[in-house]
Amino acid sequence: MDTTTLIDLFAANPDRGSQYSASACGLYFDYSKDHLTEQTLDYLFKLADAAQLKPAIQKMFNGELVNNTEGRAALHVALRGGGGGGGGGVSAASKAGQKANQHLKKVVQFATQIRQGQIKSSTAKPFRNIVNLGIGGSDLGPRLVVSAFPEHYHTTLQTHFVANIDSDALTATLKQCTPDTTLFIVSSKSFSTLETLNNADRANTWLRQAGIEGQLLDRHFVGITGHRDAATQWGIAQDRIFTVEDWVGGRFSLWSSIGLPIAIALGTEPFQQLLEGAREMDEHFRYTPFEANLPVLHGLQAIWHINFRNYKSRAVLPYVHRLGQLPAYLQQLMMESLGKTTTKEGAAVDFSTGQIIWGSEGTNGQHSFHQLLLQGTDRQSIEFIATRSAHCEAGSHRHLNSHCLAQSRALMEGKSQALAYEELLAEGASPDEADRLAAHKSVPGNRPSNTLLLDDLTPRCLGALLAFYEHSVYVQSVIWNINAFDQWGVELGKEMGNELFLLLNKTETMSVAHEQMDSSTRSLLGCLHNSIDGPRES
Amino acid sequence: MDTTTLIDLFAANPDRGSQYSASACGLYFDYSKDHLTEQTLDYLFKLADAAQLKPAIQKMFNGELVNNTEGRAALHVALRGGGGGGGGGVSAASKAGQKANQHLKKVVQFATQIRQGQIKSSTAKPFRNIVNLGIGGSDLGPRLVVSAFPEHYHTTLQTHFVANIDSDALTATLKQCTPDTTLFIVSSKSFSTLETLNNADRANTWLRQAGIEGQLLDRHFVGITGHRDAATQWGIAQDRIFTVEDWVGGRFSLWSSIGLPIAIALGTEPFQQLLEGAREMDEHFRYTPFEANLPVLHGLQAIWHINFRNYKSRAVLPYVHRLGQLPAYLQQLMMESLGKTTTKEGAAVDFSTGQIIWGSEGTNGQHSFHQLLLQGTDRQSIEFIATRSAHCEAGSHRHLNSHCLAQSRALMEGKSQALAYEELLAEGASPDEADRLAAHKSVPGNRPSNTLLLDDLTPRCLGALLAFYEHSVYVQSVIWNINAFDQWGVELGKEMGNELFLLLNKTETMSVAHEQMDSSTRSLLGCLHNSIDGPRES
Repeated sequence: MDTTTLIDLFAANPDRGSQYSASACGLYFDYSKDHLTEQTLDYLFKLADAAQLKPAIQKMFNGELVNNTEGRAALHVALRGGGGGGGGGVSAASKAGQKANQHLKKVVQFATQIRQGQIKSSTAKPFRNIVNLGIGGSDLGPRLVVSAFPEHYHTTLQTHFVANIDSDALTATLKQCTPDTTLFIVSSKSFSTLETLNNADRANTWLRQAGIEGQLLDRHFVGITGHRDAATQWGIAQDRIFTVEDWVGGRFSLWSSIGLPIAIALGTEPFQQLLEGAREMDEHFRYTPFEANLPVLHGLQAIWHINFRNYKSRAVLPYVHRLGQLPAYLQQLMMESLGKTTTKEGAAVDFSTGQIIWGSEGTNGQHSFHQLLLQGTDRQSIEFIATRSAHCEAGSHRHLNSHCLAQSRALMEGKSQALAYEELLAEGASPDEADRLAAHKSVPGNRPSNTLLLDDLTPRCLGALLAFYEHSVYVQSVIWNINAFDQWGVELGKEMGNELFLLLNKTETMSVAHEQMDSSTRSLLGCLHNSIDGPRES
Repeated sequence: MDTTTLIDLFAANPDRGSQYSASACGLYFDYSKDHLTEQTLDYLFKLADAAQLKPAIQKMFNGELVNNTEGRAALHVALRGGGGGGGGGVSAASKAGQKANQHLKKVVQFATQIRQGQIKSSTAKPFRNIVNLGIGGSDLGPRLVVSAFPEHYHTTLQTHFVANIDSDALTATLKQCTPDTTLFIVSSKSFSTLETLNNADRANTWLRQAGIEGQLLDRHFVGITGHRDAATQWGIAQDRIFTVEDWVGGRFSLWSSIGLPIAIALGTEPFQQLLEGAREMDEHFRYTPFEANLPVLHGLQAIWHINFRNYKSRAVLPYVHRLGQLPAYLQQLMMESLGKTTTKEGAAVDFSTGQIIWGSEGTNGQHSFHQLLLQGTDRQSIEFIATRSAHCEAGSHRHLNSHCLAQSRALMEGKSQALAYEELLAEGASPDEADRLAAHKSVPGNRPSNTLLLDDLTPRCLGALLAFYEHSVYVQSVIWNINAFDQWGVELGKEMGNELFLLLNKTETMSVAHEQMDSSTRSLLGCLHNSIDGPRES
């Protein structure tokens, strides 16, 4: 493929655009602007067969312990009504589905009562501000979905998201809230997440300073967790704890009780539609032959990009302002799932795995990093996302879409130095000047990109889109034989963070650092101690 | 270096931490956790000499035409009072400095009058909302600086930033504003930026719908531009146009009139301190020997990472919530400046240039993409940023800093499989289980990272930090002999966008597409036309 250009591929096949596209569940996926052919796909499908992708998909849906290092199933599909043989069965998946239904009912009921003002604050007022305290999977998913659909917001109810332990994050949010009409959702699967509990304590103090104390505090906190005991011990009232099962991974959890802020902010109907859209994609993924299976095609193409084309990053570029949070969401979903070097059996991989995921809402990036995409030295995986029906004013929507299509064309077609030269002459440049500038104005082209069109910016379509990415991630993990559902790498930083906190807090003396830590860490600690302790030069 | 670990380097030199650090202008830069030695640095300094870095720095400060493809100087340093021999000279830099002074005076005066309510709206009220309409360089810099210092906000004045042409962006902002107390800043060097002018037109309509028409509209718009005529033609009043000189590049322009929203939002004193901090870094960069020159060290290290270590991306991780916009800002600064394949003389480069820049505020990323940084297959350039004095509550600050230091330690030290095995046994795992899990819980380590400590989160320190990055970019561009100050690559997408808009808007018929465009673009246009035209299946 190194000697074949995308232009060549299109010239050779007048139907390439439609042939290398597939659609399902309100999603149109065009992967034709990529260096792949029928032969490439054929190889990739063979690779999928060799990796036993088909049985692996069934295993996930059946609730087998695909998360082998934690001895768990990964049954986020059960949250959407999929998995197993439906209700009534005795399989792991069916049981999970029943649990999920129970939890969902509670979430929906509670959200409705909050939204309608039936559940009131400690001063018998309807709540006006909901503050979700959570980080990672307890933050990014709900944050994305809530920010995508302001048209569903309740007129007198605002939903906020606070993740960082940096007190400025919560402070900025609390400026917009009044204590006696604010409800805090403390969202942590383990109910031991440092950042979240710190913010919960801070919220508690804020309420108490406003005179909301004792039993009254109960009315201002909700807990979402897999560890009911820990939540109880912290002080969440029994009737305010919503359960997350251990077969739901944090980054796959917006469909679970973790989605409570979605149900409150948007209403339960949009939340159900979100689940419904995801369920449709689940079924598509489970039953569609690979040749027309969107997540399979996407996942295998990622393998092609990463292991055969050496594309080190993936730019996610939604041409939809309200999907501005999507790159951050996918960053977690993909990088935390696929940033692994160890196979499921514990061997070291000898190939590349997950890419760096990054991006921003289009058209903004065109005035920033697109320069590098177009004229930089390396190719990347690039994902353009746009909507078919106008999600905003019609004229503005046409601009967004024309730019979206134009960027993918510019990446593919480029501009030859000869053409740049001609254009410069036509603009009145002297031959010398045109000669001098033509190279700078030329664009190499032959750079791939995908385009994903959503039928509408609706909860249903977004649900399908997010499930599409989840399943693409699973496909990649199966091909690489890694576990997409654990994240052991982050534990070490937590341990070391605790150690260093004791030093910075002066609970321990620096002798520990001198014995155990490198001179860089010691110097940095020295800098920080100086600042905490005494006056510095101005 | 492939066989030397970071741990080896630290073991070999007990003072490595302080030796491979440098500080200036309120910034402490630790680059010791990297695979480099005195010899590496020596080679890099020789490379800098061979590339004539020293004279290149002087050329920039002297106002020579370092932006050769546009025939311009790059005199952002003049905006900070640097460049040339100071005021009174006749050099390009001195003249630029004088111009900059004049513009700055006007900006400061206007900002003060807005802030103090002396300049009033069309209904003689003080302004309550300032909406900056700009994209790329007219957005990211002011957005970053304003969001970093809420402590300087005026109590009754809110500043908003709207970049995207997607009408939802402006709509969301206008919900928070009242027409007769809202001032729009239309910020566009060319005053022809599609997104910005679209939003300006939308703002105009919004005001007119509220009865603010004719001459009254003048009181609600400010223009910041290098093209006064275009601004006048659009309808900005003469006394409301602030000039940006052509020797200021968009991504280097927050120090210019483009910084007006900063001066309004924070007050003119913090804006001056920002400039002052940058000026200090300018002098440091200009006069300090390379061995202790922060931007030179940083830029040369980037060359080491990109051209010799093959690190394809740089994660920017500020452990400061209020610097959450920094990654997006640096994304433009670095990727738009360094995403080039053509030398200044027009030859194709045969080495890698700019990296992908991405990141987010810490600690959030620890619950998301750090998994890949720690256990993924590729090394990246990683930049931790923290503050010495507490910018937030003391306890929260200590947590941020302990995590920041812990992440860089975890990346470097890792955890061996043997240690993971021992820990598992100690936690009660059976030898079999410990054996099965140890590989998953081990962390490879030997991964580099930088740590930057800011003395304080103040405008002065932030000014120094941003100038530090600007100059690092220039250093890299000089070594590669590319022009850091142009961005020709983005033009092609604009041209193609205009063409496609005519098709989507049906101003032109699809026959144009059939003659000129690939079948992917045609299929996508077909999808979009279907949606615009008729009913779709639900």
